[in-house]
Amino acid sequence: MSFLKNVSEHAFEGGIRTFLETAPALYLPGVSIDTVIFSFHNEQLKVLLLRFGNTPHFNLPGGFIKKEEHLDDAARRILQERTGLKNIYLEQFYTAGNTARSSNAVVHEVLKKFLRGLPKDHWFQQRFISVCYYALVDETKVAPKTEPFTTEFKWMDVKKIPKLLYDHNLIITKALRRLQSDLDEKLVGFNLMNETFTMGELQKLYEAVYQKKLVRTNFQRKMLSLNVLERLEKHYNGKAHKAPYLYTFKKP
Amino acid sequence: MSFLKNVSEHAFEGGIRTFLETAPALYLPGVSIDTVIFSFHNEQLKVLLLRFGNTPHFNLPGGFIKKEEHLDDAARRILQERTGLKNIYLEQFYTAGNTARSSNAVVHEVLKKFLRGLPKDHWFQQRFISVCYYALVDETKVAPKTEPFTTEFKWMDVKKIPKLLYDHNLIITKALRRLQSDLDEKLVGFNLMNETFTMGELQKLYEAVYQKKLVRTNFQRKMLSLNVLERLEKHYNGKAHKAPYLYTFKKP
Repeated sequence: MSFLKNVSEHAFEGGIRTFLETAPALYLPGVSIDTVIFSFHNEQLKVLLLRFGNTPHFNLPGGFIKKEEHLDDAARRILQERTGLKNIYLEQFYTAGNTARSSNAVVHEVLKKFLRGLPKDHWFQQRFISVCYYALVDETKVAPKTEPFTTEFKWMDVKKIPKLLYDHNLIITKALRRLQSDLDEKLVGFNLMNETFTMGELQKLYEAVYQKKLVRTNFQRKMLSLNVLERLEKHYNGKAHKAPYLYTFKKP
Repeated sequence: MSFLKNVSEHAFEGGIRTFLETAPALYLPGVSIDTVIFSFHNEQLKVLLLRFGNTPHFNLPGGFIKKEEHLDDAARRILQERTGLKNIYLEQFYTAGNTARSSNAVVHEVLKKFLRGLPKDHWFQQRFISVCYYALVDETKVAPKTEPFTTEFKWMDVKKIPKLLYDHNLIITKALRRLQSDLDEKLVGFNLMNETFTMGELQKLYEAVYQKKLVRTNFQRKMLSLNVLERLEKHYNGKAHKAPYLYTFKKP
């Protein structure tokens, strides 16, 4: 699904020029934020990607930290400003600090005309270290919106991510690994399942995150051992006695 | 155990002045590194703390990132320069970015005389975000050494950490939480146990990290299910037939 918006070449270039003029006084030097927003829908695990201006290139929703802003607050503000997503529980998972991460040939090509004439010591020309956050949401419950630097949104299957700007492919790989090791613990907080769900529905989520088939009996035993699920009584209605048990998350 | 060194007031102050003059050209602005080095010895979980110069205050081993240095390389270099610890596997676990973290009253008091006269926009006066790394080592296998800013080393019991400089108490709490959730996965890599060990010895490590007693049978069942342990055959020598089984880590 993509949300296309007409951003004129002029508006995009004007936006970048204004940004480059005002950013050094507003934001911390050398530190940025990137967010990996996973969605789980129709049994697929996807990542929210933004098309950068009028270029053919995609990247993660990201931005910068105001000089007097807590890091976690900046992450929430950036996500909201760039995608319209509010009240998302973001989890910090990694800080990317390789020296080569910004000096990407494609990035230079994309930004060439804006960087021409910009002093070498300009805020934007410095090396940036990026603090990365992730979340897992149901894409049908959120409505991203575009802004000047973003002409298109895409929820892309994690198995089919194209080459992104900067080191964003690596960041997605790191996020997926963290999601895999956090899933049991964060499951309830992610608020991804309906009020009630079957064990089979829950298994689909795990299979999408771990990117492999799981054995039903082992999965069920493991989930029950986490002690977060409550099994609901079946109500006999003449048809449903063969239906699978429904579960809900225990109230904390 | 503490390693006391006589650093004259003069040497310490001279070191700080030289540092404040040379640092802005050498290091990235606004980003620092802190390391939480846990040790496990005599069934105790401890953290390596450094006394800051001639002050009564302790903090974590930390430092700054050179302008052309990978973040992870900087972390290893800093740990080695400040403590002499080499070849330690460091795991990045958290980036601290609250606005209040550097503007600590005690820190200001400690540094007052050095900061007097320093321009408000000096590199050192800016807000710093800190990328944090942790490791778990056996303190008997490492020999920290002092340097100008460190007059004393202490391995302090995690249950008895005093009030530290900056937000370092919070950073230790975050590190301990991460260690707890990583321990199963990192166990082999930490290289903490002897070549062979009993299940009871391994349980002591887990109890120190989780800071609670564990049930022996449950612990044993869990560890065996991780599939990283190899049980060695008992060799009958006339006495040892009542000794517990010995285990070793499976070769990868």
